[in-house]
Amino acid sequence: MRSQNTEAGILYGIGVGPGDPELMTTKAVRLVRECDILAIPAKESSDCTAYQIAVRAVPEIAGKPVLPVSIPMTRDRAELDAAYLEGCAAITQRLEEGKNIAFLNLGDPTIYSTYMTIHDKIRQAGYDAVIVSGVPSFCAVAAALEIPIAAGRETIHILPGCYGQGELSLYPHTKILMKSGGSIYEVKRELEELETGGQIKAYAVSNCGMPEQRIYEKIGELDEQSGYFTTVIVKETKK
Amino acid sequence: MRSQNTEAGILYGIGVGPGDPELMTTKAVRLVRECDILAIPAKESSDCTAYQIAVRAVPEIAGKPVLPVSIPMTRDRAELDAAYLEGCAAITQRLEEGKNIAFLNLGDPTIYSTYMTIHDKIRQAGYDAVIVSGVPSFCAVAAALEIPIAAGRETIHILPGCYGQGELSLYPHTKILMKSGGSIYEVKRELEELETGGQIKAYAVSNCGMPEQRIYEKIGELDEQSGYFTTVIVKETKK
Repeated sequence: MRSQNTEAGILYGIGVGPGDPELMTTKAVRLVRECDILAIPAKESSDCTAYQIAVRAVPEIAGKPVLPVSIPMTRDRAELDAAYLEGCAAITQRLEEGKNIAFLNLGDPTIYSTYMTIHDKIRQAGYDAVIVSGVPSFCAVAAALEIPIAAGRETIHILPGCYGQGELSLYPHTKILMKSGGSIYEVKRELEELETGGQIKAYAVSNCGMPEQRIYEKIGELDEQSGYFTTVIVKETKK
Repeated sequence: MRSQNTEAGILYGIGVGPGDPELMTTKAVRLVRECDILAIPAKESSDCTAYQIAVRAVPEIAGKPVLPVSIPMTRDRAELDAAYLEGCAAITQRLEEGKNIAFLNLGDPTIYSTYMTIHDKIRQAGYDAVIVSGVPSFCAVAAALEIPIAAGRETIHILPGCYGQGELSLYPHTKILMKSGGSIYEVKRELEELETGGQIKAYAVSNCGMPEQRIYEKIGELDEQSGYFTTVIVKETKK
């Protein structure tokens, strides 16, 4: 059923960038300031990194109503469908009331976010929804490391936090391992061996742009404390 | 020789984002406003897309001194070295005078920019240089197309504007062809065949976020006019 409500609000899927509040775009700042409701991909704003970044960038939004749209980390199709249904129903109810909603996403909304599924469902229901790009975390990680992600004819390969032994050597040039968290240990030894052999140089940054940011100059230094928000950049050594 | 000048200026390598002036970060806006000199990777500011974006975002910078640092598109090592040497000499001269310089880059400075080479040379000469991340063009392209670049366990493969027949099928999931320009014709037929066979869906956007932006719903519509600033996103069709 498409909305017939010409007074309906607009959903904005907003990338708040990688962590440094000053890396929010001026469009994101304007829209979180102008919107009626902040939607977050979490149960509580205190648990939501995207919300914390937005509030540090624009402190006056701290009093705005928050709509939690929590999608569980599960592959149970029925559980996922129910969560999306509930989240979209809550969003469309506010849009019908004429409220504009800013849905906050860490990094960029088109790269590994749950927002895009919500965006599709809201658009299919006949509402306006707009994607506002943000700086992805891996750009800030490369900036902190002061290394180019790629130059000239080099290719870039981005792998989410799940990969197996040997997968890294399938791709040439730069590899970016996102949200590596626990799964980095599966390839840590492989990376160390390739680095010792002089074939690659691996770098890691955890919690980039946050007060607790840590740069790992050697991949061997990564430990259980390095957490979910760790990005690894693997560069082929020039022959 | 490292600079001993404690009063020396700072070089900022600034990503101005993909085209829409509102997609500049608040840090980029602040730094182009505060800096003494705008450096551009072009001979003239009128030819420099990054400069045009910055001026549309912050009109009052139009009167600032501009330092052209033009690196030719050549593989002639001697010609390149001479261009970098001249560019870095011009930059260090201004830094020695205590001037802060904002070097403007389209998209993000760590992704296919000439800035990173300049950054390294300026740092090696003992000056402060800081990279300020920007929104890469491919994020804005995905936002304009309203498609996720990747979700879940999908990988992303970014190829610069030079690739051969068959290279696309080396990599699974999402492929991003940057600054495809002329070289897209080398793979256009391959993309059309894969699309007809139902294996992929290819999308393209030229001049994303600029007034002349054009979205190509079918890859076959791409023609000689689509230009240098065309980004193609190729997505595997779900089986």
